[in-house]
Amino acid sequence: MPRGKPSSEDQSLVEPVAGNGLLDRRFFLKQGIVFLGAGGLATASTLPAHAADPPHLPPWMQAPGAGMSGYGSPAKYESKVIRTLIQSKPGTTGSGASRTPIEALDGMITPNGLHYERHHSGVPDIDPEKHRLLIHGLVKRPLIFTVEALLRYPMISRIHFLECSGNSLIMYGPTPPALTCGQVHGMVSCSEWTGVPLRLLLEEAGADLTAPWLLAEGADSAAMSRSVPMAKALDDALLALYQNGERLRPENGYPVRLFLPGYEGNMNVKWLRRLKVTPTPIMTKDETSRYTDLQADGTSRMFTYPMEVKSVITRPSPGVALQGPGLYEVSGIAWSGHGAIKKVEVSADGGQTWAEAALSAPVLPRALTRFRTAWKWNGAPAVLKSRATDDTGTVQPTRDALVAAHGSNVSYHYNAIQAWQVEANGEVKNVYA
Amino acid sequence: MPRGKPSSEDQSLVEPVAGNGLLDRRFFLKQGIVFLGAGGLATASTLPAHAADPPHLPPWMQAPGAGMSGYGSPAKYESKVIRTLIQSKPGTTGSGASRTPIEALDGMITPNGLHYERHHSGVPDIDPEKHRLLIHGLVKRPLIFTVEALLRYPMISRIHFLECSGNSLIMYGPTPPALTCGQVHGMVSCSEWTGVPLRLLLEEAGADLTAPWLLAEGADSAAMSRSVPMAKALDDALLALYQNGERLRPENGYPVRLFLPGYEGNMNVKWLRRLKVTPTPIMTKDETSRYTDLQADGTSRMFTYPMEVKSVITRPSPGVALQGPGLYEVSGIAWSGHGAIKKVEVSADGGQTWAEAALSAPVLPRALTRFRTAWKWNGAPAVLKSRATDDTGTVQPTRDALVAAHGSNVSYHYNAIQAWQVEANGEVKNVYA
Repeated sequence: MPRGKPSSEDQSLVEPVAGNGLLDRRFFLKQGIVFLGAGGLATASTLPAHAADPPHLPPWMQAPGAGMSGYGSPAKYESKVIRTLIQSKPGTTGSGASRTPIEALDGMITPNGLHYERHHSGVPDIDPEKHRLLIHGLVKRPLIFTVEALLRYPMISRIHFLECSGNSLIMYGPTPPALTCGQVHGMVSCSEWTGVPLRLLLEEAGADLTAPWLLAEGADSAAMSRSVPMAKALDDALLALYQNGERLRPENGYPVRLFLPGYEGNMNVKWLRRLKVTPTPIMTKDETSRYTDLQADGTSRMFTYPMEVKSVITRPSPGVALQGPGLYEVSGIAWSGHGAIKKVEVSADGGQTWAEAALSAPVLPRALTRFRTAWKWNGAPAVLKSRATDDTGTVQPTRDALVAAHGSNVSYHYNAIQAWQVEANGEVKNVYA
Repeated sequence: MPRGKPSSEDQSLVEPVAGNGLLDRRFFLKQGIVFLGAGGLATASTLPAHAADPPHLPPWMQAPGAGMSGYGSPAKYESKVIRTLIQSKPGTTGSGASRTPIEALDGMITPNGLHYERHHSGVPDIDPEKHRLLIHGLVKRPLIFTVEALLRYPMISRIHFLECSGNSLIMYGPTPPALTCGQVHGMVSCSEWTGVPLRLLLEEAGADLTAPWLLAEGADSAAMSRSVPMAKALDDALLALYQNGERLRPENGYPVRLFLPGYEGNMNVKWLRRLKVTPTPIMTKDETSRYTDLQADGTSRMFTYPMEVKSVITRPSPGVALQGPGLYEVSGIAWSGHGAIKKVEVSADGGQTWAEAALSAPVLPRALTRFRTAWKWNGAPAVLKSRATDDTGTVQPTRDALVAAHGSNVSYHYNAIQAWQVEANGEVKNVYA
């Protein structure tokens, strides 16, 4: 379509749909509007109309490049895009968590090298030929599986997020941490997981499917263990063997992990060695000494499985600054352990008014969903927020509402709306607003 | 649901739906059928009913494991899962192709480290701060973009396959090659690509959108160049900056590549440095000396863009053998440059009868689609085939039909049905059948 005068529909797209410059989510999808009026993107340099090829060939065009490789690596220029390692205690090299640098990524998939980690006693070096998985307890036929045996079973593949229940916990604190988006919220990642439906193996063992619980135990030296409801095991639980096409990475449970779509990360037991069908929850150390939610009234909630609806703007964010007034894409991720994301709204005036963002297809249940919207920043300080709604109708709460409901003793399941303060110089700060 | 006698519906699922033991595609989705009759999976070892925990803790449970890492790597036990490097000519380290080991992968996503490569003069080492993209030719405002400028534009994310037009070309030869599935068919991979819609940049440059062609040129020392139809550029073309969440890998075009969903790989020009709007195709060396399709009558077809509907069984396949008679999942990938996969059929009797396979959701246009079906192998030699149909209704041809239509002088766009001969010992051979 040749360029020409903007149509009246195009004109309407240039009018803000919410306060402080947020534009219609279809803004970037329409033709012929990028340069309308002041405040266009204007990020390219204009050449004289007679310009031909650039006069000098860059050095990398003057000699043949590098050869092929068996297994590739990121560009050396991206060496700062790494996980942030935070140890639980000094000297415990394998106990702690590493965060995905979500502010440097785009799309919905997390590359395997940057998937967040959470270990209770390091990453075990498991020989897949010697690893065994035992299914026992309330079963007719206790079974031991080799990894080779598991690989022969029928599989399914699903794209799902995984989030540590302690993700963002620092945001319960009294002062907003001066950290990057990934350092605060980066214990969430999203992969295509492929594995064997757990239901098949339970049936093969002749498990009592009316028994309400299973114990899942990992083969790390902490023997990380959680109780899993049988209902989830029979619904959509996987024994995951592949992540984004290839076999699991060691830090994500090689050679096999439990995967419970939407459930808090630690229940997705890595290096899975044992499943025991039981009449009651086992009350393991990992579900009593931690992963319970201490409320303001001193009681603790246990077995709070699904991660709640949540979103965060990844660009702009602290360290990902704006370069002067003008037109920007605001981009972020949203997810819910209860289902698919139905809607993400963005505010540029601290939450007074909201504009609906565009969601990137495919929007899948219990998967990261990329949202994007257009913002014409006038250069004045502004507070950006995003607010997700899932297909159960649950809306992401404000921080005030979350803390009012649960107090600030709790360490887990933080899912409040994140506020980023954009300063006049384009820098972005974490604020409680 | 407690186990019990199979229902009549379950019983019907055990009856083959096509010759030589192919079962209904819902077979593995039904409960309580895994152990029905002889020939079940039976791959686990049975324990005595009183068995408790395994008596000995494996060595990796007896001491803390390794620490966290900034950027992870595959398990050392998977070191054989690498790309197969094939140089075009001896001594030309950077000219050739590497193949994705598709027989070792599952799901639809290819991890970035294993995405296939095809280079004409190696992988350039491009400093993203010094790289420039020029848009010129029939435009009102010739523009030069830095990578930083491109990163500010609005983006979209899409999961798409990429296939070299020369993928599988060895199958045009007179003898079926004794190679793995990936070595024959592994110049296809699938990623989530995120980037800027090309249309936006063409509009910003004031391009004459009625001009029918663009020239796209790479910043490798071969200056790989192709002519691109304006219609495709305005439809769904991207300037891709991210692949599976992270910035492009060097061997896939870092810092920016053209991405034309469904089009033959070489048109998706890597290391993109120049787009020129032109009234005619430029007839570059790369579209005249190669990437034309020599027909049996001596004429050559040019500008054959979309990759045709295709599928291949990845498990079992050569080197991925069966372990004795019994129940197996037959698994593979299907794709079409013309749209989404509508159906994949599998035959275990050399193509006499066919059973429809299950497709793994989401089934996306111009993306790899995983198919799976159940097969009860009786231990006798058998010929396995898969046959894909896309949503335009096009059916993957037999090799005989493909060669009859085009001859065997052609090197590109091989998409015939693949036949795998399963021997009585479970080994798998590539055959023309």
